[in-house]
Amino acid sequence: MNKPLAISMGEPAGVGPDIILALHARRAELELAPFCVFGHAEFLKARAQRLGIPVDIATVGPAGAMDVFAHALPVADIEGLVPDHPGQTSPVSAGAVIRSIEAAVEATLTGGCRALITAPIHKGALYHAGFKHPGHTEFLAELCAAGGKPRLPVMMLAHGGLRAVPVTIHVPIRDVPDLLTKELIIETIRVVAHDLKLRFGIANPHIGVAGLNPHAGEGGAIGREDLEIVGPAVAQLQFEGIGVEGPLPADTLFYPTHWASFDAVVAMYHDQALIPIKTVAFEDAVNVTLGLPIVRTSPDHGTAFDLAGTGRASAASFLAAIRMADAMTAHP
Amino acid sequence: MNKPLAISMGEPAGVGPDIILALHARRAELELAPFCVFGHAEFLKARAQRLGIPVDIATVGPAGAMDVFAHALPVADIEGLVPDHPGQTSPVSAGAVIRSIEAAVEATLTGGCRALITAPIHKGALYHAGFKHPGHTEFLAELCAAGGKPRLPVMMLAHGGLRAVPVTIHVPIRDVPDLLTKELIIETIRVVAHDLKLRFGIANPHIGVAGLNPHAGEGGAIGREDLEIVGPAVAQLQFEGIGVEGPLPADTLFYPTHWASFDAVVAMYHDQALIPIKTVAFEDAVNVTLGLPIVRTSPDHGTAFDLAGTGRASAASFLAAIRMADAMTAHP
Repeated sequence: MNKPLAISMGEPAGVGPDIILALHARRAELELAPFCVFGHAEFLKARAQRLGIPVDIATVGPAGAMDVFAHALPVADIEGLVPDHPGQTSPVSAGAVIRSIEAAVEATLTGGCRALITAPIHKGALYHAGFKHPGHTEFLAELCAAGGKPRLPVMMLAHGGLRAVPVTIHVPIRDVPDLLTKELIIETIRVVAHDLKLRFGIANPHIGVAGLNPHAGEGGAIGREDLEIVGPAVAQLQFEGIGVEGPLPADTLFYPTHWASFDAVVAMYHDQALIPIKTVAFEDAVNVTLGLPIVRTSPDHGTAFDLAGTGRASAASFLAAIRMADAMTAHP
Repeated sequence: MNKPLAISMGEPAGVGPDIILALHARRAELELAPFCVFGHAEFLKARAQRLGIPVDIATVGPAGAMDVFAHALPVADIEGLVPDHPGQTSPVSAGAVIRSIEAAVEATLTGGCRALITAPIHKGALYHAGFKHPGHTEFLAELCAAGGKPRLPVMMLAHGGLRAVPVTIHVPIRDVPDLLTKELIIETIRVVAHDLKLRFGIANPHIGVAGLNPHAGEGGAIGREDLEIVGPAVAQLQFEGIGVEGPLPADTLFYPTHWASFDAVVAMYHDQALIPIKTVAFEDAVNVTLGLPIVRTSPDHGTAFDLAGTGRASAASFLAAIRMADAMTAHP
């Protein structure tokens, strides 16, 4: 608990910096754990001024963050040029955005910070600076692998004790059935089981697995994948001693009382996981990345360019992401 | 309001008859609108005895139902043999199950009853008696067409003002993208718009349409169907003057506040509609069939053979189905 949390500033044209500044201003009222922002100090100062948020910025980095957090915003200053243009991405700032993520990961990997909360990025704005990763999470996995082969990063959406993990994510529905292999399901659920123990302190995780097809395929009457892929994956995991059950019909699996009887539910595709979590959590679901050597959470929203610089972006999900990262590393 | 509701008894080995008897026993407390059960009087008597529910059965049919409902269960008696074997389907009873549905539809079509609530059937148990329909709803659509070409029946799940309609239903996810044609989406939404006016009294329905792919395809980056099929269908409907919006990202469309801003949300496949409705409604979602010349509702559960004859089946969804059928026909 004597280390700060790390927050990467994210896309400067988006709402991430706004929310970081707004939450820092309410740090006493919200009893926030101290954090250090990896970002561009001058830009943050300009954005705060635009929003009318009074802030003292202390460019102290993680080592000094605990001491100054009560009266200033600790910043690990990243070099570069970052214009304050809400809603307008700029190739100029891309390098600083990427370096702020790299520095935040390094500080967390090496123990200078307890956990990482990332503000949203906009991939399109980063391509000019050589960003070649399919997404934020894959970039983090590569950084954490430090040149080696990254482990499979796994996205978990969480709202209190309700947790959902999609096996496939940003792919067309048409491609889902062929992408779902027994191996992918097994590897995903191994990561989930491992991290429920390591990160959430659940000694014997109990994991529910949704079927791909309606009614989990009704014994083959509605598609064969639940019989031939999902079922055998579950059997293999059970053989390995993992507490897993399925495939279960997805429409009744997410009754909140049923869902809460599992430590996590694994879904086969994006909407099968995200519809129920967003339906119950409204705006404060948290994205937790499993399978990394660090704790990483992020808010469950994007850059929301139309709200950037207005002060009207909801801080609920970002606040929940900070609280979850804090709780996950409060008892090392 | 001077006509009873019709209830078809459904599969005698399932929980339908149990719940009908249990709700009738509580009719005063629940202030239920009078209904007439289309079923086998002797069987209902035997099941009531098994459950320890005291009941007087009056085989009066719809015409006498209003007068006797306060002190007896009005039954339109269906001939046949119906054994009281909870959990065990029997070819013997299949004919009576089918005839009870036919009689209930006829009574509702011809004005003897206001609306039809159907108890769940088990298709497998009916095949012996020549049942050849893909499902209960398609059977009703054929009966209502009286020999002509049935209209497209459309399934709507409802919980108060939250309504969800899947365009495709009991088909494998693998088949969904090719089954989703512009024509099918248009015809489904026409039926929804028509029946929101006719059945729900909503003068200018506002309908949200979910995208097929994650984030509604992100402008083609995640699959082309939302651009090429769903979008053009929505445009055509807007041209026809129907108040429809989409394709919208499904994961945020079902935020209850967002969802409630639409009179109905149309989803592209089974779980996309059923996950959110069951997540918010727990056990009291109601299935409403649109596109029929009669009002038809049903509980959102199956025969639940393991609970039949035990008295432990939840009556919540069946009760909600009765109340919805009543409300939809209370002001003709």
